[in-house]
Amino acid sequence: MARFVMKFGGTSVANIALLERIADRVQQVQKAGHEAVLVVSAMGHETDRLVTLAEAVDFQSLATRRELDVLLATGEQVTIALLAMMLLKKGLAAKSYQGHQVRILTDDAHSRARVLSVETEELERDLSQHIVPVIAGFQGVAPNGWTTTLGRGGSDTTAVAVAAALNADECQIFTDVDGVYTTDPRVVSEARCMTRITFEEMLELASSGSKVLHTRAVEIANKNQVSLRVLSSFNEVAGTLITTEDNIMMEAPLISGIAFTRDEAKLTLRGVKDQPGIASSILAPISEANIEVDMIVQNIGADFSTDFTFTVARADFELAQSILTAVSERIGAQEVLGDERIAKLSIVGVGMRSHAGVAAQMFDILANESINIQMISTSEIKISVVIDEKYLELAVRALHAGFGLEADPGAESV
Amino acid sequence: MARFVMKFGGTSVANIALLERIADRVQQVQKAGHEAVLVVSAMGHETDRLVTLAEAVDFQSLATRRELDVLLATGEQVTIALLAMMLLKKGLAAKSYQGHQVRILTDDAHSRARVLSVETEELERDLSQHIVPVIAGFQGVAPNGWTTTLGRGGSDTTAVAVAAALNADECQIFTDVDGVYTTDPRVVSEARCMTRITFEEMLELASSGSKVLHTRAVEIANKNQVSLRVLSSFNEVAGTLITTEDNIMMEAPLISGIAFTRDEAKLTLRGVKDQPGIASSILAPISEANIEVDMIVQNIGADFSTDFTFTVARADFELAQSILTAVSERIGAQEVLGDERIAKLSIVGVGMRSHAGVAAQMFDILANESINIQMISTSEIKISVVIDEKYLELAVRALHAGFGLEADPGAESV
Repeated sequence: MARFVMKFGGTSVANIALLERIADRVQQVQKAGHEAVLVVSAMGHETDRLVTLAEAVDFQSLATRRELDVLLATGEQVTIALLAMMLLKKGLAAKSYQGHQVRILTDDAHSRARVLSVETEELERDLSQHIVPVIAGFQGVAPNGWTTTLGRGGSDTTAVAVAAALNADECQIFTDVDGVYTTDPRVVSEARCMTRITFEEMLELASSGSKVLHTRAVEIANKNQVSLRVLSSFNEVAGTLITTEDNIMMEAPLISGIAFTRDEAKLTLRGVKDQPGIASSILAPISEANIEVDMIVQNIGADFSTDFTFTVARADFELAQSILTAVSERIGAQEVLGDERIAKLSIVGVGMRSHAGVAAQMFDILANESINIQMISTSEIKISVVIDEKYLELAVRALHAGFGLEADPGAESV
Repeated sequence: MARFVMKFGGTSVANIALLERIADRVQQVQKAGHEAVLVVSAMGHETDRLVTLAEAVDFQSLATRRELDVLLATGEQVTIALLAMMLLKKGLAAKSYQGHQVRILTDDAHSRARVLSVETEELERDLSQHIVPVIAGFQGVAPNGWTTTLGRGGSDTTAVAVAAALNADECQIFTDVDGVYTTDPRVVSEARCMTRITFEEMLELASSGSKVLHTRAVEIANKNQVSLRVLSSFNEVAGTLITTEDNIMMEAPLISGIAFTRDEAKLTLRGVKDQPGIASSILAPISEANIEVDMIVQNIGADFSTDFTFTVARADFELAQSILTAVSERIGAQEVLGDERIAKLSIVGVGMRSHAGVAAQMFDILANESINIQMISTSEIKISVVIDEKYLELAVRALHAGFGLEADPGAESV
């Protein structure tokens, strides 16, 4: 007997027919002698509808964020009620749970609360009586009893936290894709759905532009050693198992996947005096404006001056540019350059840890296509480059072929 | 300083502009030095939308009623969040409360739960800090932590229960009419909005067809001596105060109001043997089918046989008729007669307690219009008659004029 936490996102619960499909799937799981715990998101565009209502009132202040959480939490509450009804109609025992009923305790940071603990007593009692708990994702309750929500990717986070608390054998994230791909199949037709991948690789892919899973959910799964599986609500496929390195074949491939994003923009401050504290005096005003900085590169230039370059989300570009212009005048820099037409591209793989020369191979492949690299940043298992946006597809295809990602390295060893 | 519980129904919270209007009204109440506690229903047709969703899944069983409550409770939750946001936007301190947060404890009879208690500690703390609590009507929490709903008129019930617990000076029910009328103004153009009325009169009017307030809310208000006021969300009027008899002028009018309903149907079992236990053998199968019986009349006939007549909701007519046909065969009655084209009309007034001849006067007025009375039933402060539906308007107008209801009896003495 295995215990599965099964999470279904908005597109997987968008209508009654899909709820019936989930009920059928749960019935199969139970027939096979396994236990199922469900975690669900709001139906389809329900959250958008609720946000539109809130915007009609205007919710700018911190104070109203508390109420926005109360509003948004209704989305998941509708789904758990309808799905529990559907399970009951199919003859399965089921019971819906709102965040505060489970009780999923969070801190009181409204709209981006962190999960502190998940109570399991009642869930365990349900499971021992073959009752399927249907839990509202995305929501929790603060110590003072207020309703909270977990922010983007919140339902994934709920599922992983519940799986960790219940010692589930697997946390299954049902999506509208077949699993985690080596890169976006819309860009590279040879992109392959991976059988397995490590938590670290998934983290790097998620933070580099792959939208299948939210970083936070992967982090919590990694920390609690919860095996995660990404699979399809619509196709009967095995999906991608995200697990610890120990569970992956001995000889890891050099590169697992390629992620990319067009959502960033680049800013450069030219001719900055190269002296201690200069980076902080540039970035402090940016961060005070709540702008997140991604890649940062500083080169030593001639005449004790340097160029300082960083990337921000494209939505923050104009604000960052105006802040930087003011900074530039204050610290006596030469000029501010900005570029919105960039793309960030990352290759990720635990195999590169033990293999030198992956970076060189990457740069070589790009050079062969005459693609200029504007910025480089590396981590232990990732190399990211910023290039001109117009070369993005060309670069991804060249790297996918160059590193042989279309062949399944785990086909024999798994 | 006075403390008001203000309840706004579905039509009063149907859109954002109306929420703003409520915020303005609360601001006036606070400026006048008073305290406000809000209780709200789901917006406009939201409950209908949710019921449609549930029906798409199919919710026949008792088990799914628990989940239906979870679903329906989202309607009020949306309103409290948006209204609290609106109050905050207007610079007022406000805080939303779901039923379980207040905590409004109910029994576990899903979809028709009864309120057991209302905790006030947190609400009192809010009020002492000039925070406006915005409470979801219609919903509560059972001792086991499950979400419950209170059934029809549930938000009125919530408001009265909260007002009783908080010792509010007045529970104000905001509606789409100006108050409680002597009768339906659509039928009698001279119908007058009453300044005051007793709980008992309101109860009789509500149970006789007046739809302004639900019987349950009036009962709880009466039991807890909470002054109720029905007033308009849309017009600045004083509305109708529903209070104890002591607070009404010494010389009560004979008749306060006329209520009527077309929602009933009449069934007669002719030629029943007049023997002990016969009424029970007729009504038991009806009540076992969950059909509620309203008026019951039995006449002694000739030859030790009798005619037995009662009314049921028109929606139950066909079912009741088929049950009665079976009963008729079993007990050897002569025949079953049914009539759907009836109307029930009631005159209500505490004044009739001390005045004989009100019934005679009523029957006289109807006789002058040549209206035949099919059934009569009386209580201490009410006389109800069943007549042919086609005479209803005529009868109501004749009685309204005959008892002089267009003149305000309290105009001087209040």
